[in-house]
Amino acid sequence: MLKTLRKAVHKANLQLPKLGLVLFTWGNVSGIDRARGLVAIKPSGIPYKKLILDDMIIVDLNGNVVAGEGNPSSDTATHLRLYEAFPDITGVVHTHSTYATAFAQAGCGLPAYGTTHADYFHGPVPCTRALTDSEIRGSYELETGNVIVETFANIDPNAVPGVLVKNHGAFTWGTSPGDAVHNAAVLEECAKMAWLSQSLNQDMPPVGQVLLDKHYYRKHGPDATYGNKNI
Amino acid sequence: MLKTLRKAVHKANLQLPKLGLVLFTWGNVSGIDRARGLVAIKPSGIPYKKLILDDMIIVDLNGNVVAGEGNPSSDTATHLRLYEAFPDITGVVHTHSTYATAFAQAGCGLPAYGTTHADYFHGPVPCTRALTDSEIRGSYELETGNVIVETFANIDPNAVPGVLVKNHGAFTWGTSPGDAVHNAAVLEECAKMAWLSQSLNQDMPPVGQVLLDKHYYRKHGPDATYGNKNI
Amino acid sequence: MLKTLRKAVHKANLQLPKLGLVLFTWGNVSGIDRARGLVAIKPSGIPYKKLILDDMIIVDLNGNVVAGEGNPSSDTATHLRLYEAFPDITGVVHTHSTYATAFAQAGCGLPAYGTTHADYFHGPVPCTRALTDSEIRGSYELETGNVIVETFANIDPNAVPGVLVKNHGAFTWGTSPGDAVHNAAVLEECAKMAWLSQSLNQDMPPVGQVLLDKHYYRKHGPDATYGNKNI
Amino acid sequence: MLKTLRKAVHKANLQLPKLGLVLFTWGNVSGIDRARGLVAIKPSGIPYKKLILDDMIIVDLNGNVVAGEGNPSSDTATHLRLYEAFPDITGVVHTHSTYATAFAQAGCGLPAYGTTHADYFHGPVPCTRALTDSEIRGSYELETGNVIVETFANIDPNAVPGVLVKNHGAFTWGTSPGDAVHNAAVLEECAKMAWLSQSLNQDMPPVGQVLLDKHYYRKHGPDATYGNKNI
Repeated sequence: MLKTLRKAVHKANLQLPKLGLVLFTWGNVSGIDRARGLVAIKPSGIPYKKLILDDMIIVDLNGNVVAGEGNPSSDTATHLRLYEAFPDITGVVHTHSTYATAFAQAGCGLPAYGTTHADYFHGPVPCTRALTDSEIRGSYELETGNVIVETFANIDPNAVPGVLVKNHGAFTWGTSPGDAVHNAAVLEECAKMAWLSQSLNQDMPPVGQVLLDKHYYRKHGPDATYGNKNI
Repeated sequence: MLKTLRKAVHKANLQLPKLGLVLFTWGNVSGIDRARGLVAIKPSGIPYKKLILDDMIIVDLNGNVVAGEGNPSSDTATHLRLYEAFPDITGVVHTHSTYATAFAQAGCGLPAYGTTHADYFHGPVPCTRALTDSEIRGSYELETGNVIVETFANIDPNAVPGVLVKNHGAFTWGTSPGDAVHNAAVLEECAKMAWLSQSLNQDMPPVGQVLLDKHYYRKHGPDATYGNKNI
Repeated sequence: MLKTLRKAVHKANLQLPKLGLVLFTWGNVSGIDRARGLVAIKPSGIPYKKLILDDMIIVDLNGNVVAGEGNPSSDTATHLRLYEAFPDITGVVHTHSTYATAFAQAGCGLPAYGTTHADYFHGPVPCTRALTDSEIRGSYELETGNVIVETFANIDPNAVPGVLVKNHGAFTWGTSPGDAVHNAAVLEECAKMAWLSQSLNQDMPPVGQVLLDKHYYRKHGPDATYGNKNI
Repeated sequence: MLKTLRKAVHKANLQLPKLGLVLFTWGNVSGIDRARGLVAIKPSGIPYKKLILDDMIIVDLNGNVVAGEGNPSSDTATHLRLYEAFPDITGVVHTHSTYATAFAQAGCGLPAYGTTHADYFHGPVPCTRALTDSEIRGSYELETGNVIVETFANIDPNAVPGVLVKNHGAFTWGTSPGDAVHNAAVLEECAKMAWLSQSLNQDMPPVGQVLLDKHYYRKHGPDATYGNKNI
């Protein structure tokens, strides 16, 4: 079972450069086996083109390395905090993808400007507050997780599977490591389109709730009609 | 004959990712056999790299599946409405291509700013009004087709083979599925150049009618001089 | 000798898509044999991936086809006018490359904002005036050449080997078909960098004359020090 | 030993086009053997795709060619000045990469807007003053080095391994030729993200000192935790 998880995490990590979401080592994907309480995650600082299956690190929910050589991603504590707080997610991705990071650096959330966004995110993708100096000096990566969880106090993380961390970059999640990567790619493309749209119309309103609902529920929930589930 | 149609539609669908017009499954192409009253269209939710000829779905003009497994594209009703209203077209494309969608999200039509545009679109590419909440809650995909047809009340769809649907994305059409894809790529490139030009000159006027006519009729109609028709 | 010319023109045409300067058939390269008074040019409307050596059309200086099947590029009369007026050039390129065309559509010349520009263009790349309706209705492609020549009344075409044609796109030229393509790629990159710089600083002045001279004459003229001429 | 240096410099030069940092011959990498007082550098004007190991030129610290045919890069004097003034660096890169050059042309330094930047540059990447006409007319390439050194009068070049030269382009350096190229790619990506962020928020403040320190010292210095040094 851990082999299945490690394979899924390895494959999902390799998707990041293919989708143009990372430069060098700037990103990482993890996946969780909730029954065993174990997480597989990318090692720290290994280039994607050298990344092999056996490089994946297994950690427990306290971040202790259970299997694998080398250090787990320096962002591991953030991943673990998200798994703890969002019980339905089983994959987490962190990237510095260009347009999403541009919004994060500017401290701007990503409004739902169109149906492309609404197909995946049932509302705006929020941007966290900045961490305090004390939080940065303390358990920085854990506090990054905490500020994400705080941001989702009144947002369903299953309906909005991503966040922009102020001054930093993007985290997305999903129902598998691959689904979380899919959401990372969607977030980047939606950020690019939003950036372009805002340049055309500085005071652009987001889409209305009815259109937001229509598109989101075409793809999610019991009445979803998209795809080929009947095959 | 349906095999010819399905091959043309399959090939045209595969052109979308090659031309950089789609991410994941975000787009679809159809083609019509007007003599038989049948339409071939991409199935819903199948990634392009897995899309084989036999995946193409055949539907009749009411949207009933006549051949093929799985569901036709969720946008099928929009395609059918366009075939019904625009009798000369035989291919339809829907994309969320980046720059075209940025204009659609901003609710802005695409002015004819240059000869590149004029070679293909004999005037601005319009943006539809937003759908009403009632239209969205009702037969949404059909209403998307209706609002496009409404937008073309005083525009010749053969001379302006594309539209931006507000908050959504682009539809283009043509004299074959491949021609419709060609127009989708031109629309995206013209949208990018228009976006860049507007940043240089916020109050830029469109090209004059004489230049618009000159370029359009170099490529279209009985006096066209472009290409190698005499070979 | 014509085979050498046709090969150079064919190779230079194939460089256009490799350098990202054209979509579909939107561009063309020609070369001249001044001793024989013959020009080789891309045929009209043939996709680059199907373009073979034998497709190159040979025309005389009046535009009569001397060899080759099909029609020469619809822009042939513009090329011929440039060869006539600029006696030192032996290759001409026309593109609708994205950023250069954005400037052309906006009616803006390209200031010399940096040494990248100065290495190739000894001053701003000008934008022509718009053609009059009468010129457009008349010998349009010839008039396009005329307005370029008019624009260079007080500019040395050897020192500024390119122009933006208002509402249209770019023409560049050079000492060979390949050199003209090289200049087309430089123009596009300089246009992109200028566009980005102007967004950072709306009132940005061009570089001073001394820096312009320094870089231009590092690469051109009797005192050029760039490259490996002594090998 | 010189073979090792030449191989490292050759490999690093070939990385420039792979990372999208150069068009044609617009860039160069060098490396220094400090024990021997020799520098290996790209030859002038050779296209990257034709660049072979034996093309690398060896010069002494006065710029005299010690080994190799052809001319060393026209920017050699700038490289040598940086090696002289910054005793800890062993590789130097010069590029005209698009976004970095856009900032350089606009005369704008690159603020530290996020953690991506802070991971590599411990503060803003400065832009030099313009060279005076006298400096341009004199030993131009040496003066380019001098103005960089002047700009770093109060900046540690090991903590900020790059600079924007006004109206020109970027120089980066590092602990090896490959490390310097790595920094060139990071600078370009940070410039792109900064450009995008500034468009979203014109008055955006840089990140705070505590976050800047946190990220920089995660990757640099005795307390670095990033990577897999324990393997």
